[in-house]
Amino acid sequence: MTTQAAPTAEDFLADFRTMSEFGATGNGGVDRQAASQADVDQRNWFRTILEARGFSVRFDQIGNEWGLLERVPDAPFVVVGSHMDSQPTAGKYDGAYGVLAAAHAAFRLAAAWDNGARTAPKYNVAVVNWFNEEGSRFKPSMMGSSVYTGKLALADALAVTDTSGVTVDEAQRGHGFLSEWEGPEAAFCAEIHVEQGRSMERDGVTIGLVHSNWAANKYEFVVHGEQAHTGSAVIADRHDALLGASMLVVAAREIANAFPGKVHTSVGQLDVYPNSPVVVPSRVTLLLDLRSADEEALAEADAMLHRRVAEVEQAASVQVEQRTSHSWPVTPYQSEGVELGAKAASELGLPYKEVMTLAGHDSTNMKDIVPTLMLFVPSVDGISHNEREYTKDEDLVAGVDMLTEVVGRLCDGALED
Amino acid sequence: MTTQAAPTAEDFLADFRTMSEFGATGNGGVDRQAASQADVDQRNWFRTILEARGFSVRFDQIGNEWGLLERVPDAPFVVVGSHMDSQPTAGKYDGAYGVLAAAHAAFRLAAAWDNGARTAPKYNVAVVNWFNEEGSRFKPSMMGSSVYTGKLALADALAVTDTSGVTVDEAQRGHGFLSEWEGPEAAFCAEIHVEQGRSMERDGVTIGLVHSNWAANKYEFVVHGEQAHTGSAVIADRHDALLGASMLVVAAREIANAFPGKVHTSVGQLDVYPNSPVVVPSRVTLLLDLRSADEEALAEADAMLHRRVAEVEQAASVQVEQRTSHSWPVTPYQSEGVELGAKAASELGLPYKEVMTLAGHDSTNMKDIVPTLMLFVPSVDGISHNEREYTKDEDLVAGVDMLTEVVGRLCDGALED
Repeated sequence: MTTQAAPTAEDFLADFRTMSEFGATGNGGVDRQAASQADVDQRNWFRTILEARGFSVRFDQIGNEWGLLERVPDAPFVVVGSHMDSQPTAGKYDGAYGVLAAAHAAFRLAAAWDNGARTAPKYNVAVVNWFNEEGSRFKPSMMGSSVYTGKLALADALAVTDTSGVTVDEAQRGHGFLSEWEGPEAAFCAEIHVEQGRSMERDGVTIGLVHSNWAANKYEFVVHGEQAHTGSAVIADRHDALLGASMLVVAAREIANAFPGKVHTSVGQLDVYPNSPVVVPSRVTLLLDLRSADEEALAEADAMLHRRVAEVEQAASVQVEQRTSHSWPVTPYQSEGVELGAKAASELGLPYKEVMTLAGHDSTNMKDIVPTLMLFVPSVDGISHNEREYTKDEDLVAGVDMLTEVVGRLCDGALED
Repeated sequence: MTTQAAPTAEDFLADFRTMSEFGATGNGGVDRQAASQADVDQRNWFRTILEARGFSVRFDQIGNEWGLLERVPDAPFVVVGSHMDSQPTAGKYDGAYGVLAAAHAAFRLAAAWDNGARTAPKYNVAVVNWFNEEGSRFKPSMMGSSVYTGKLALADALAVTDTSGVTVDEAQRGHGFLSEWEGPEAAFCAEIHVEQGRSMERDGVTIGLVHSNWAANKYEFVVHGEQAHTGSAVIADRHDALLGASMLVVAAREIANAFPGKVHTSVGQLDVYPNSPVVVPSRVTLLLDLRSADEEALAEADAMLHRRVAEVEQAASVQVEQRTSHSWPVTPYQSEGVELGAKAASELGLPYKEVMTLAGHDSTNMKDIVPTLMLFVPSVDGISHNEREYTKDEDLVAGVDMLTEVVGRLCDGALED
């Protein structure tokens, strides 16, 4: 391995511009759904920049892309990364920033260990690009980290299909993105991400230290009605599944309004059958979620939702089936990680505060198996999952500095008991 | 041409059973969208039964299938038929019954002219299977008769695409279903169909004589919002296109409820973008229609709808674009046709009444170019666009008797001025 100079902040921004060309939409955003051509091309590009720095690149059994830097034979790894896949017509920062920041943090640490600026580490570094965090093409979201952490069975994940029947396995196998390997052994984890909210911008801080995640309840509802002719069927005879579903969408918003600022609700996905102009729909499937930082408010919102479901069944003469539901409570990130982050930010002179994450992240899975830090940089106007998502260059660069320091300390063993 | 015996009622029911096997769903219904494999196979089957009776079969420029029986050189044609395409998971009577009834009526008349039971006709007979009446795969509905009657430009119709980008032209050309021919010259028209409502069953009549159609206003609305993260975006910041669309669906039903029994409203089709579980939808397209037999009520309902649109824009922080809208007034079928139908039904001893059609039919187009009769047989419970659509055999058979008599009289010149 030849010693290379650490990449600069300018190098980071240049790589980020290159990265943002994969699946670029022309409106400042990207469209890079999991295992799409843009995602495939980008994973291959990412391999080349890792390999150019002497990292060994491997894909695991679900298609997570790992860049391994082994400096301590047989020692476990500090896992650092995020995801490069995106929603359709999404912003270019979400996930991608965290993967590239992880790589550059690791490049800087490698140079520092080589030139003696930092003492030799006690742990190895694994840069990771988690597969399919977004879950737009293949459900569920956070698929790669869920398989890695044992929360989702490999066979189930590989068998998931997109709307045209292509499986996760088929979408990746031919590109050489699947192996028998389970991934490296993790000791600690760090992830950096854009906030996707407004609180840091409002408070004028550069670094967010995530102390816990909001609780969420997620439901798949199937509204069952009956096909009829939209023209001739008497209104009183109709069992209109779309009317029932629409009432649920409206109810979800009314529930959020009942807990101002405390409960977030939404329906992101809704599919109508047979979806023909002249047929009263017989079946509508929709995904509805309730989120809150306050578990008591969430429980009240949930009870309210179920009362509304019963009312909708009556009002629209339909049946509402709750097909799957999963939920997670408010869970903390390890407090010693938050303390480590606070110390690092102070020493770097970066204004910081503790925050919660409203969105799910791969680190939400990782924190359940190893001590994990989740860091945020600000999002201008809090805009995310939108081509107008934006974070200032100076914040991106400060985030790389912060992540480098955090990963360096984790490699030094700062969180060993 | 060899003289053949007229087919019996049993022959009709046997052919109808065979016909219902094309695209059979296994639940008593059919799935035979325009130019699907089932529709292609059925058109080829229909060609064979027409040719076996000495009819000359031709496809015109948009793919309407014509069975021509020319007994009067150079005379124009009495056009009789309906459509064999269906909605997804539809009933087996809608359209298909009318096409087969037309063929059997023509077969019976041919035999009667051959054996002298009826005097020689003054007009020829053209049995027609109109292309794409349903409009579920390719919009608009009534495509074949709209092109034939000059209401829709051929080039526009051929260029229409389905959701996977296949054009009407591509879907048919390879099957030999397109030619340069514009179709035969029509003098008169008749169509028979199931009622798709309950009024005839309630009144105990076997034959409905359609005197006019309900008026309708049809809109395509596009609700414009903005993508955001369903978890992290503050509720007050959201521009949720699906919330706005859902409010419109609910408003449509409330408008129908404001005019009990007088106004029918519905949203049959609704598409969400990007339709991902964790993205607030930025765009929803929906087709909404208002129908009434009372044009004044329809105008009031329309004004109410547009007030509601403005309210929804405020309440959901979205823009609602009205992209296309078309409408038709209450229009009469020729009263001399209704009189001819009443006379024929009386002489056959079939109980009949005058009715309106709430649904559109190919005859709605045809009546604007030639004197046209539209006949109904009852629908049990009024169920239609549903696999449970049902009409009793005795009513099907009575309808064929009625249609034979009506077409015979039209061929005799009964509606010449």
